[in-house]
Amino acid sequence: MKLLASGDLQERFAVMRELSEKITAPLEREDYVLQAVEEVSPAKWHLAHTTWFFEEFILSKWIANYEFYLKDARKLFNSYYETLSKPFPRDQRGLISRPTVDDIYNYRAIINERMKDLLESAVITDELQHLMELGIQHEQQHQELLLTDIKYNLSINPQEPIFKKEAIEHGKGPIEKFQWLTYGEGLVSIGTNNHHFSFDNERPSHYQYLYDFQLANRPVTNKEFLTFIEDGGYKKPEYWLSDGWKIVQEQQWEAPLYWNEVEGTLYTLGGRKRIPMNRPVQHVSFYEADAYARWASARLPSEAEWEIALGKDMKEGTTLEETLEGKVTNLPLATGHVWEWTASPYTSYPQSARPDGALGEYNMKFMSNQMVLRGGSAYTPSGHIRPTYRNFFPADKRWQCTGFRLAKNGGQI
Amino acid sequence: MKLLASGDLQERFAVMRELSEKITAPLEREDYVLQAVEEVSPAKWHLAHTTWFFEEFILSKWIANYEFYLKDARKLFNSYYETLSKPFPRDQRGLISRPTVDDIYNYRAIINERMKDLLESAVITDELQHLMELGIQHEQQHQELLLTDIKYNLSINPQEPIFKKEAIEHGKGPIEKFQWLTYGEGLVSIGTNNHHFSFDNERPSHYQYLYDFQLANRPVTNKEFLTFIEDGGYKKPEYWLSDGWKIVQEQQWEAPLYWNEVEGTLYTLGGRKRIPMNRPVQHVSFYEADAYARWASARLPSEAEWEIALGKDMKEGTTLEETLEGKVTNLPLATGHVWEWTASPYTSYPQSARPDGALGEYNMKFMSNQMVLRGGSAYTPSGHIRPTYRNFFPADKRWQCTGFRLAKNGGQI
Amino acid sequence: MKLLASGDLQERFAVMRELSEKITAPLEREDYVLQAVEEVSPAKWHLAHTTWFFEEFILSKWIANYEFYLKDARKLFNSYYETLSKPFPRDQRGLISRPTVDDIYNYRAIINERMKDLLESAVITDELQHLMELGIQHEQQHQELLLTDIKYNLSINPQEPIFKKEAIEHGKGPIEKFQWLTYGEGLVSIGTNNHHFSFDNERPSHYQYLYDFQLANRPVTNKEFLTFIEDGGYKKPEYWLSDGWKIVQEQQWEAPLYWNEVEGTLYTLGGRKRIPMNRPVQHVSFYEADAYARWASARLPSEAEWEIALGKDMKEGTTLEETLEGKVTNLPLATGHVWEWTASPYTSYPQSARPDGALGEYNMKFMSNQMVLRGGSAYTPSGHIRPTYRNFFPADKRWQCTGFRLAKNGGQI
Amino acid sequence: MKLLASGDLQERFAVMRELSEKITAPLEREDYVLQAVEEVSPAKWHLAHTTWFFEEFILSKWIANYEFYLKDARKLFNSYYETLSKPFPRDQRGLISRPTVDDIYNYRAIINERMKDLLESAVITDELQHLMELGIQHEQQHQELLLTDIKYNLSINPQEPIFKKEAIEHGKGPIEKFQWLTYGEGLVSIGTNNHHFSFDNERPSHYQYLYDFQLANRPVTNKEFLTFIEDGGYKKPEYWLSDGWKIVQEQQWEAPLYWNEVEGTLYTLGGRKRIPMNRPVQHVSFYEADAYARWASARLPSEAEWEIALGKDMKEGTTLEETLEGKVTNLPLATGHVWEWTASPYTSYPQSARPDGALGEYNMKFMSNQMVLRGGSAYTPSGHIRPTYRNFFPADKRWQCTGFRLAKNGGQI
Repeated sequence: MKLLASGDLQERFAVMRELSEKITAPLEREDYVLQAVEEVSPAKWHLAHTTWFFEEFILSKWIANYEFYLKDARKLFNSYYETLSKPFPRDQRGLISRPTVDDIYNYRAIINERMKDLLESAVITDELQHLMELGIQHEQQHQELLLTDIKYNLSINPQEPIFKKEAIEHGKGPIEKFQWLTYGEGLVSIGTNNHHFSFDNERPSHYQYLYDFQLANRPVTNKEFLTFIEDGGYKKPEYWLSDGWKIVQEQQWEAPLYWNEVEGTLYTLGGRKRIPMNRPVQHVSFYEADAYARWASARLPSEAEWEIALGKDMKEGTTLEETLEGKVTNLPLATGHVWEWTASPYTSYPQSARPDGALGEYNMKFMSNQMVLRGGSAYTPSGHIRPTYRNFFPADKRWQCTGFRLAKNGGQI
Repeated sequence: MKLLASGDLQERFAVMRELSEKITAPLEREDYVLQAVEEVSPAKWHLAHTTWFFEEFILSKWIANYEFYLKDARKLFNSYYETLSKPFPRDQRGLISRPTVDDIYNYRAIINERMKDLLESAVITDELQHLMELGIQHEQQHQELLLTDIKYNLSINPQEPIFKKEAIEHGKGPIEKFQWLTYGEGLVSIGTNNHHFSFDNERPSHYQYLYDFQLANRPVTNKEFLTFIEDGGYKKPEYWLSDGWKIVQEQQWEAPLYWNEVEGTLYTLGGRKRIPMNRPVQHVSFYEADAYARWASARLPSEAEWEIALGKDMKEGTTLEETLEGKVTNLPLATGHVWEWTASPYTSYPQSARPDGALGEYNMKFMSNQMVLRGGSAYTPSGHIRPTYRNFFPADKRWQCTGFRLAKNGGQI
Repeated sequence: MKLLASGDLQERFAVMRELSEKITAPLEREDYVLQAVEEVSPAKWHLAHTTWFFEEFILSKWIANYEFYLKDARKLFNSYYETLSKPFPRDQRGLISRPTVDDIYNYRAIINERMKDLLESAVITDELQHLMELGIQHEQQHQELLLTDIKYNLSINPQEPIFKKEAIEHGKGPIEKFQWLTYGEGLVSIGTNNHHFSFDNERPSHYQYLYDFQLANRPVTNKEFLTFIEDGGYKKPEYWLSDGWKIVQEQQWEAPLYWNEVEGTLYTLGGRKRIPMNRPVQHVSFYEADAYARWASARLPSEAEWEIALGKDMKEGTTLEETLEGKVTNLPLATGHVWEWTASPYTSYPQSARPDGALGEYNMKFMSNQMVLRGGSAYTPSGHIRPTYRNFFPADKRWQCTGFRLAKNGGQI
Repeated sequence: MKLLASGDLQERFAVMRELSEKITAPLEREDYVLQAVEEVSPAKWHLAHTTWFFEEFILSKWIANYEFYLKDARKLFNSYYETLSKPFPRDQRGLISRPTVDDIYNYRAIINERMKDLLESAVITDELQHLMELGIQHEQQHQELLLTDIKYNLSINPQEPIFKKEAIEHGKGPIEKFQWLTYGEGLVSIGTNNHHFSFDNERPSHYQYLYDFQLANRPVTNKEFLTFIEDGGYKKPEYWLSDGWKIVQEQQWEAPLYWNEVEGTLYTLGGRKRIPMNRPVQHVSFYEADAYARWASARLPSEAEWEIALGKDMKEGTTLEETLEGKVTNLPLATGHVWEWTASPYTSYPQSARPDGALGEYNMKFMSNQMVLRGGSAYTPSGHIRPTYRNFFPADKRWQCTGFRLAKNGGQI
């Protein structure tokens, strides 16, 4: 990633900010407030929180005696920065009907203006540059959450509203023949030292020792996953981690989220559709990915294996922007279609340092009970993914666009 | 209540229907969706449910091959009539953003039109007359719930939005000096045989034997209740029923709902205000009422005592319509200011019969674990209360406009 | 009940105390600690609590500078007398392995001795007489709970241990032909003024007005209840109170507690047996009784109806002592076989007064969300029942020996 | 570990089996049944489960037509081998009063006999040798759990029973001066290929790349941890992982488990004692360890760092056998005093293979949401620890004998 001049920064900021509002444009006012479960946030909240982020971490630092536009912003739109203030209870975000949607859009416009003024007048120091990049990447993360949260929130409605007719989530194109790619043993380097830009959790670049392994040339497809289901995969404890088996029984999982496997359909942002058999399975938890792999006499790759094998030729796949417009390009099933669960628990890299202050809470404090995902999905905004990017979610969550690919020990067959 | 000609019915129907929309008029679109706890419903849902009620119990019966305007109405807006369909989970009503608020208002207009056509063309049989009355009373009940639910839903927001600046909940006027009124022993008759109109739970009129008792001339005031608090009322288990004491500790109750007793303020539809010391205490549970009475060496009246003593001279107090506009009349603190908890569990009257069909579920199936309230409140629409009216809520609920008055055994002192 | 001389009191006390230990005699040491759910107490706890009761309410009052034998008795064995001390959490009684069972038996012996000394030396005042009676009746109540709690606690074990081979719960004998008995309208008197002995909740005797009603000559039998099940009784919401229907679905009730209706067997203190078709159904909740009655186009009797109709000729049925030994007499199915749910919520009688001090908590503080049961069961100790006795349990509980009989409005057919 | 002749195996088996019963010897019958929370099992259950293990995995395989001594053993005493049978619900193990304690001791004796016969008559194949070793190590694991579970179960009792007067948990001796030991960067090998004996989760030996690091010469002491508490460690979110902070607030943690920090005492197997300031802190969760490390500007070591630095010179510390007898030797605070939380989530080693059949469930299926602990504690039986041993528990659990030591990046200072 090359450094940007102030003009570029302004441009990137503006384009990025616009995208958030493009995402929410099809929503009805009432939809903005929905919060179906604790981990899903209302669309309104995402729009406000990402805006407050620029106020909190840039405007209030660069502008003397800065006054927050919304007095209660820190109370209402702080996500989890405990060192700043006690965040409003996460499971009650859907009860904050005011400020209204219009208020929030207005809030966004005002802060956009203030940011523009700042970027025009301030010296773009390294620190400002870095914080701008962080603010942009932060909102891009939320853009993906916006879409997955909207999808989940609307799916609860028995009418299954169509979010946007044009949206196509699954891409299209021929299916690659399954192949094992082989990789040799040795000391490798993963992670990055690039501070312009990477998240703290991607740093520093460091050695790991890998053994011979094989990796699938593409993610597992819906068709393949269906075979697992039909073979009783959800009924046989021997494939499952203990915690996974518990949740399968409690929640009576029988298929990926959004599937109606009797009808052979699934719910998408564009409405209910037939399951596209030759596309990567989506909306499975780590537990389902891991159980499938055990059923298939394989395993999931570690994040190091994934990065070494696929990092260099990472493809963006379909981007969020294209998904929204249904502009699906005929792409190989390499990467970028689904976030891919790895076998790696989410922890800090050797030699890493935790940033000071509230931003030290950005990534590091979630380093327990989560698994790393790699790649990027059809919900990821353009320009947001990179080979060293570490996404992470608890092992039982399924509402993100999550799939997986298989790995195996050993080299040549 | 005199029988009404068809024209009167139309008029009453129209006026009543308009009131629901007057109530919700100050809401923002986003407010309509809120559901802070299971027992509180979104404003949107009330507006739709009361409309579906006319379709389900009148239009679909009187019009051959009637087609419901919203195909999913029975799925989405059936409250609890299990014999009709499996109701949508009550605790998820806030997740139904579609049909939108506009759709619901449109739905109301269409059904109003259809009802108008029906009332103009159909013979107004006794049955139709009765069902019309039921539909009207049903929506009036929901009008009170609309207001109390809106208040509760907005109160969760730390910004405490003002629902309607003009609204005044507490009435005004001088406080009556406290007096015990005495009533003599004997066989009395309570309840009613009036089928035009009463709810099934008020029928039939029947004898009860009462002993000498005394009844307060007015409900307990905020000032009086404050004395109980200051005397450690919420800290002393000896005043409390066992279930009540449990909830006091679990929920850490220290005062009525909406009070900030440190500041001496309470949250109202018109915003946060000073506690009006000389007005009846509101938003207390049966447990708090019962504990206060024990502290005061008194008890709550039975519903028969209440009806015999106060039924004849029942006053409407301030009505919902007046409360909304802040048109508070200078009224004596007799009745009609708060729903008054009685000592009577909610059960069916002797000799009563449960109606057939879905309407048999209207009242009767809630006859366990609830207490009867009598009177009527500043949230009750004009024309809705009557001496034999039996309101009922679980003993731990506080979000209704609920207060109480004291009673005592024995006659002349 | 005639007054007893001190010698009689001593004798009755001793016999009663012995019975508690006869009940627990077949238990293994390990069984004494079991507490399967919050409302069920360990056998050990019952034995200790009833002993502490005599210390707390008699010995410590009559003996100057009385020292409690177990220093922590008030902490560990206070059930719910909040005015005495904070009781140990009810749901953790099963975690108190010490004092051991031997310690508890020893504790009982010591207190028996002290009580004997007291009764021999003290003047038997009215107050002492009354407290002795209360202590005896209190332990008798716990004797019934002991047995039902033991049964429930053992039933969780998949091995279904046999508590006592000899025990027969169901009585035997021919089944009475079903008959409606009719009773006329009028003012009646129920309750009692007898202070030697009645519980506070039975007092005072007072008038109630009853309408013509009919009452079944015997409780509903297992065979009759099976017809309800086979007719889909547990599947049809129209028969159920709303709270009842909720629990049916949550707990997946399909038959009375302890039934295996596929096998046609039930679990008893004497082991698993065939369902005795011609004996009263046991272990049903109020909700099941009420649903059955609605299915049968009947209703449950009020407690006043029950007392007026059956109080005079109340039979003891089989007693706890006989049940334990399997000494089942060939008795008519009149009363005394099962506690019979009535339609009456548990509240205080008109003109009643709540006792002062801790004993004021004995009954009165449970007067919400419970239903009255009348009669007495095969688990009730001899001499414990009387026409005015009011038993009470929450509407969803089934682990007591609870059945019901039908009632109907109207007189001669 | 050298291979053992059949005679040695018999001897080791017998000695090990005896130890389990030595541990439980001080218990009262009633104590054997206690299960205070789901993750804690009754003593009785441990004694039976470890016995069933020999039946299930050895006797029933080596003896034709083997008949299980207890017919329900697989139902009642299967812990989590889902491929064998549906285990009895874990949270209800405390409700299984039968088979009684005597039955269980008898069961143990019978199986001991059968095992003796087998070992005398069978050819000791590699497989049998390995399974014997597994059975022994398995019961040793349960011996540690037995003690920690007993401690927790007794601690709930407000009387805080003394389990065994002689027991001393904390060792004694002078405190080593704190020192950072430094270790250089490079490729290291951890894990083992030893199949006689290691658990599957320790295999295979494999490379990892380590960077320069420093490791404390001893675990953090109570005195040091107290400084953290006094500095507000439990009140400041900045030190805590997000999941940890949540549990601190929910459970209102203010100190390690068993501490009464106001009194300066802690509950031990030998009764309540003064906190031994110079001994390693025990009974802290991973979250507390991690928070302390952040507060101390340090971190926890990875399991590889721990193994490389301390594996070679691992000391046994005080053993379970010595702890029970209070035979506390004057040992350096090196290792073996507390299980030490590492920064490593519990996952499988590269190139590892999951065993077939039910034993494949032994370790592998718990590889999510747990953290690795290294070392061994004063509750670990003699002969059970080794440098490559991986203990694991969820990050929030504190009832094991768990402490930690600090690590740091970088080499020489």
